[in-house]
Order: sequence, then C-alpha cells, then structure tokens
Amino acid sequence: MTPSKDEKKHQLFLGLFIHSVKLGELKYFHNTAVFVDRSGNIVAIEPQCDLKKAEEVVFPKLGWKGGDVVVTAAEEGQFFFPGFIDTHVHAPQYPNVGIFGKSTLLDWLNTYTFPMEASLSSLPKAHRVYTRCIRRTLAHGTTTAAYYATIHVPSTNLLADLCLSMGQRAFIGRICMDNLGPDYYVDESADQSLKLTQESIEHIKAIDPSYALISPILTPRFAPACSVDAMTRLGALHRETGLPVQTHISENVNEVQLVRDMFPDCEHYAGVYDTYGLLTKKTILAHAIHLSNDEADLIACRGAKIAHCPCSNSALTSGEAYVRWLLNKRIALGLGTDMSGGYSPSILEAARQAALVSNHRAMPAGKWADLPAEERERAKLSVEEVLHLATRGGAEVVGLGDKIGGFEVGMQWDAQLIGLGVVDETVDEEDVGDHGNVDVFGWEKWDERVAKWLFNGDDRNVKKVWVRGRLVHERVR
Amino acid sequence: MTPSKDEKKHQLFLGLFIHSVKLGELKYFHNTAVFVDRSGNIVAIEPQCDLKKAEEVVFPKLGWKGGDVVVTAAEEGQFFFPGFIDTHVHAPQYPNVGIFGKSTLLDWLNTYTFPMEASLSSLPKAHRVYTRCIRRTLAHGTTTAAYYATIHVPSTNLLADLCLSMGQRAFIGRICMDNLGPDYYVDESADQSLKLTQESIEHIKAIDPSYALISPILTPRFAPACSVDAMTRLGALHRETGLPVQTHISENVNEVQLVRDMFPDCEHYAGVYDTYGLLTKKTILAHAIHLSNDEADLIACRGAKIAHCPCSNSALTSGEAYVRWLLNKRIALGLGTDMSGGYSPSILEAARQAALVSNHRAMPAGKWADLPAEERERAKLSVEEVLHLATRGGAEVVGLGDKIGGFEVGMQWDAQLIGLGVVDETVDEEDVGDHGNVDVFGWEKWDERVAKWLFNGDDRNVKKVWVRGRLVHERVR
Repeated sequence: MTPSKDEKKHQLFLGLFIHSVKLGELKYFHNTAVFVDRSGNIVAIEPQCDLKKAEEVVFPKLGWKGGDVVVTAAEEGQFFFPGFIDTHVHAPQYPNVGIFGKSTLLDWLNTYTFPMEASLSSLPKAHRVYTRCIRRTLAHGTTTAAYYATIHVPSTNLLADLCLSMGQRAFIGRICMDNLGPDYYVDESADQSLKLTQESIEHIKAIDPSYALISPILTPRFAPACSVDAMTRLGALHRETGLPVQTHISENVNEVQLVRDMFPDCEHYAGVYDTYGLLTKKTILAHAIHLSNDEADLIACRGAKIAHCPCSNSALTSGEAYVRWLLNKRIALGLGTDMSGGYSPSILEAARQAALVSNHRAMPAGKWADLPAEERERAKLSVEEVLHLATRGGAEVVGLGDKIGGFEVGMQWDAQLIGLGVVDETVDEEDVGDHGNVDVFGWEKWDERVAKWLFNGDDRNVKKVWVRGRLVHERVR
Repeated sequence: MTPSKDEKKHQLFLGLFIHSVKLGELKYFHNTAVFVDRSGNIVAIEPQCDLKKAEEVVFPKLGWKGGDVVVTAAEEGQFFFPGFIDTHVHAPQYPNVGIFGKSTLLDWLNTYTFPMEASLSSLPKAHRVYTRCIRRTLAHGTTTAAYYATIHVPSTNLLADLCLSMGQRAFIGRICMDNLGPDYYVDESADQSLKLTQESIEHIKAIDPSYALISPILTPRFAPACSVDAMTRLGALHRETGLPVQTHISENVNEVQLVRDMFPDCEHYAGVYDTYGLLTKKTILAHAIHLSNDEADLIACRGAKIAHCPCSNSALTSGEAYVRWLLNKRIALGLGTDMSGGYSPSILEAARQAALVSNHRAMPAGKWADLPAEERERAKLSVEEVLHLATRGGAEVVGLGDKIGGFEVGMQWDAQLIGLGVVDETVDEEDVGDHGNVDVFGWEKWDERVAKWLFNGDDRNVKKVWVRGRLVHERVR
C-alpha cells in the first residue's frame, strides 16, 4: 500500500458510525460526521450532519477550508467501526497458521514453533513472512497489534520497520528466552537477553522516537523459558523505562505444573511474574485459562491485563478461559489471534470464537453442570460484548484506552469501513464485486446486521482501514 | 449459473486429486487423470497420466474421440476434492444465519425460526431466500444437501425446482409438525401432514422421476412437534415407499426432558422414533448430543445415521456431541451446517468446528477431567477425519456411499476444484485475484496445505464445482 498523497490533509468521514460505549452496549450514530485533523486526531463529531452542514457549520469552527479536506462517505449499508486490536500475536509463526495437528502447547512449541521462529534469522525470509502477516492483519481490520517477534534483533527490527512503513500501530517484542529453549534457538545468557532487548529498543527509538506508532515491549517468552536472572533484570528494566511487558500465563495444565516445579518458592504462576516485578498495570498476560482465584485476584490487584485467545485455546486443546469471571474482577481483557497457536489472522474470528467458547463454558454437560443454570448462562458473551473486547477492551489492554478503540473527540482515527453484501436479484454479482458471505436481505435491524457480520464476516467486508488517519488498506474490489 | 453447453460431453480431469479413503486417511493422487462420461459417471482413473497419454492410451479403450471431450486441468497448486455433503440444513432459515443472540433451542425456535419459516409461505420471498441459499452453499462446495423446507407445499416444491435447475443434489423435506407449533405455523392435523407430504413427493416424482438429483425425504420436525398419529403414519409411509427420513434427536437437555414428559411409555428419545418405525438405516438424525449409551446402541443396531452440527451446537449452547464414541459404535456420521442454528453455509467451517469441538471434549478441565489423559485425547478429530466426515461420511449418511464422496470408478463426478493462495512478492495481487486467506509459502507438505485450507479456507478457494459432471459453480476471479 503506497501512502496516500492525501494523508497530510484534514479528513471528514460521513455516514453511520458504530462503536462500543461500554461492555455489552454498541452505539449507532446515523448520519453523523467525524472530523479528523492532519495528525489523525478526531477533533469534532457532529450528529445529523451531511457534507453541506459540515462545510457550512463545522469547518469554520475548526478553521478548515473545503479544498483542504478529504471526504470519505460510507455508502448506504456501510459503516465505520473502530479498528481491531490484536493483543497477542506471534508474527514469525504466521506461515504455520492451521498447522498444529493434535499437538498441545509444549510439544507444539518443539515440533512447529521453535523451528519456524529459528528460521527467521534469515532476513529475506523474515521480510516475506512479516510483510504478509502485516498485510493480512491490516486487511482484516487490525489497526494495532502486540507482536512477539523472535530472538533475533535484525529481523525483530525489520518487523518494526515494516509496521512503520505499512502503517500498522504495533508493539514489537524481541523474545527473551535464555532457559529451556532448544540448542538452536535460545539466548546464550541473561546478559545476552538483556543486551539484545536493549538493541531492539534502541532501534525503535531511532525510527519512531516518540513511539507514536511503534513501541518496544519487553517480552519474556514465558516463565519457564527465562532464568531468574533474566526475569529480575527485565523487571528492573520495566521499572526504569516504563515500557510495557507481554508474556504468557496459565495456558496449559502441563505448563502450569512445569512452572510449579521450576518455581517452588512462588505461590503460583502469577506470583512468579509478581516476584520479578513483571506483573504491573503495563503487563499483557496471554491466555490466563487455568488461574486460581488467588492468582486472578493478584492480577486484578496489580492492574495487569489479559489477552484472551479463544482460537488458539481451542486449537491447542488448552482450555476455556472463564472470561466473565475475569471481567467481573474488573481485569481489562482484549482479544488475541495468537497466531499460530490460533489459526486465523482475524480478530473478527477471535471475537466469534470468544462468543462460541463462552457458550461452551455455559453448557449443561460441562465441568460447571452442577452450577445453577442462571450462573452458567452468565458465562455467555454477547455479540456486543465480544466486539467490545475486540476494540475498547483491546485498547485498554495495550494501554491506549484513551487514544483508540472508539470514536470520541481526542481519540485517534484508527478505523475500518465495513460493507456487507446485499441480496439483490436484479444486480449482476459480477458487476458489484465480492462482498463475502454476509447476506443482508434488507429487513434486518442494525443489531442483526452486526450479528451477521460477526458470524459470517471476513476481510471482504473490510473496505478501507486507517491508522492515525492514514489509509493503510483498501480493497480493490 | 447457466448450464454449460459442454455438459453432455465426456470430460477429462487432470492433476492432483485428494480424497478420503477411510476415516483418518487422505490419499493424494498426483499427475492423475479421471475420466467422466456424459452421464457424470467416473469411468476410468489413470495414474501418472497427462493429456497425451489420456488421448493415446485411455480414450481408445473408452471409445472416446478427442474432440468430444472437455478437458479441465488443475493448475499447479490446485487440487480436486470430492464435493461436500451437508447432511442437515434448513434452507428457509438461511436469512437468519448469525442471528440467535443468547437463545437456546426452544426459545430460539419461537423467537427466530418459526416466524421466518412461516413467512416463506410467500413464493417470491421463498424464491429469493432459496436461490441465495443454494447459490451460497454451491459456492462453498456443497454438492449435496439434505434440506428441511417449511410446512408449505408450494415453496417446498419451489426449493426442489431450484435445486434441480441450479444443479445441486438434494433431499427435499416438507416439514411435518402437527403438534406444539405456534398457531400461525402448524399442520392442522396428522391427515394434513400426510396429505401435504404426499403432494410434495408427487411434485418431485414429476420433475425428477428417478430421483437422480432430487429426492423427497420424510421430515417429521422432531418428536415433540408430531402427534403420535402423524408419526405412526409417517413410519408406515417410510416402510411402504422406502423414502429416507430426517429428523432431530437429543439436541438440547430441555428438549430431551420434554420428550421424556411427552412420551412416558418410551424408554428414551431414540425409542420414540423406533416405536413409530422411524428409526431405520434410512434415517438421518441431527445432533445426537445427549444420547444415553442404550440410545446410541439402538441407533447403531438400527443402522440409523447421524448429522453432526458443531457450529449449531456451539452457537445454541446445545452441547458437545461425542463423535469419537459414536464412530466407535460404527454409526455412520456426517456433518451438517444446520443453518441457521449453525451460523455458516460452509461445510468446511463445519469440519473446522468439528475438529475444535472435539478438542473441547478432550480438555482437561471439562466434564471428562477424571478420564485418563489418553482416553480424553482420543476424542480429538484430526484434519483427515473431519474431511472424511465432510465427504465420505456424509455420503454414507444420505445413503449414497456408493455414488459420491470419493473418486472411484463407478462413482459420480460430484467434485470441487480447490485453489490456494501462493505468497509471491513478485506478483501484483490485483492481477491474480483474491484467493482468500490460505497463504502457501511453498515449503509446506501437502498434508500441511490441506490443514491450512481446513483452518483458513473459504469459498474463494472453491474455483469450480460439479455435480454429476455438470459444472454448477465457477468463480469469476
């Protein structure tokens, strides 16, 4: 995608805007105008406003002139939606999506994951894989991603460069793993872990000094893969720099047991991270399936966030995270594709599976069969709730709750234009292009259209994508 | 789709063919030629055969002349796969896909399903809905579908007409429900149920006398919706005509309880159908989630078949069917989309969800936590297994195991041509068209490509579809 020549102009967006105002409540702004300045900030929102009113009433207030403004109007049936936020994704594993057989976490790492990640020491291969991964996720409406890269600094830096040039907002983590990795793919020492991490931070500082689009993120792979020394020093670096942290927690029962065996002095898995200063309000914990109540309370107390990855958890037979329980503890929670534990590049698919997996928690024949039906029922996540997690929830998880995830004055324009297919027998489909599998017959209410989009939508419905006001993806047909 | 002018010619297919030979084993025929005669039958399969060898060696044996043969060659990276078989789908519910909220079976029926089905008494509406449903399912590679229509004869007959003209192999069932339905949508009496069923059978007999493409199927909605009189007489009709039967069983725990209350003299749900002569080797039972061991044994003993509908079962919080257990009892089992309990028109999606739901059965924290890990693990269905269920398994369920579901001499050419996307940075994507989300980097083995297709494939990968040799769907780009 070539940067638009218009990107330094003010922008006006007209039509229907849908966003989540709070967990479980989508709001629909019909016939609305959103004004985005040259820096990509939303500076005004005007209800019941068409182009004429925008030009006559709002432009003068903003000091804008008509010719300087790029206008994008949603067509009938289209709507603007906040960009999706992928709170947990391994870019180097992208080529392995769908390839996991019947493996579970620990054998999956050794069979599929470490060999692929190790091979990304090759910069040409990394270029090919990362370019494709970013292009795909952008095409699915992912405007922000919290990426794990590999242990290699050059290809990690390349991932940062590519996100910057392709315009995807990203957190880029060089993976720290100086323990238990295979011989061919492991940091030599805690010293090296820290040194290489620092190099990757310096690179990002050089290409995006204010971290406006790209931020480093400290990335101890997971407790079993890090020495006590490495974790201690990463904890210190976290405290000193204020950079965010991402890692895994309690994904798989064998992993949980491994942590128990390796850290007998810590009360539990969350306690390990807490001991080393890695459990703070800037920590993103992926999975969090098999947490004890004490662990969840500690996470809540520390203000750490959770990346829920239902596609991955079902694919690797990891378990069913109890999202409602975590939300009730007021833990911030977003969605992650977790490619390639997760099989899909799409956060819409993650949202869909989050709803379905929450239903599995509510099934009468499950572990929770003895609970009263009403309590089981409460586990279920609605369409509105999972779309909240995909946007506002994710924004909070990556520490950008005040900047992205919704349409509000003062926020940045990270958005997608969604178009659904209309069943019209009078139109030749070959003329109108491929709008995917969402079929709108015309009688559906808007909440029903959104439900249809959640359950059958794909990248064909994502017509345009913007990050900080810049058009970063557009479907040709 | 206009019928191809070539449909009455012999056909030669060249390239890679993949099909399931038995549960869990896909076979790959590279550089192979498949010869299909004018009637759509596979008359020869020749390994290591290109066009030249086909013309020189095989055509003479078959008495074919070159000019009379239409040749379709799979491109590099494409493959032929048997058409998918949807063993359980409600065509009139198609407009409701994705719309179910947090409902479960019994309230879902009243809130969403009965009103929609009732509205299809309108023939123009039925025409619009059914055309779209057939077009969509064909586009996803569904060559055979076991359809539930509505209680209305004219629109049921229209569904049969449309399947015939659009070329989809189909079982068409007018729904019998003379009990418990809402006032606005119910058969007046058992007499009427039988009379209208007969009318629909007569219509199909008139348009496709040998049931070569379209067959009637007796369709008591489910036990609670049918009077004893209706079920008794449908059982007799089944015995007299030999027509297949389709119905629902044990989808939801409240439904199971309802059946227990309504039929106190029957031992269990399966026993109800058995009592009325509706549990035979020509019966397709949808769902079968909460069966007792005795019930499953009775189903196995009677040779009845099961349509597993994982998308629906997760969406309506119905439960997790224990597929491995049913397969071990040697019950024939296929996949159903169960639109619109299921949210997707795609059997590939059903196969994907069948794999994921089987993983949920295997999760350590579930109901089955006390089982030994090895036994839980056995619940998991592999890529090869779910693709078997989508093709051969489905064929057996609809009673066409000797005709469709694989590539064998004597079978009919119900097939799809699958193409995956290739990651090639030297090619302008706008030139090569949209090949969907499956990204092949080139180093993947064929079983890995198939896994990628299962987990990220969609209708964009379905390039062409044939039923009985007739080209019934082709992607323009």
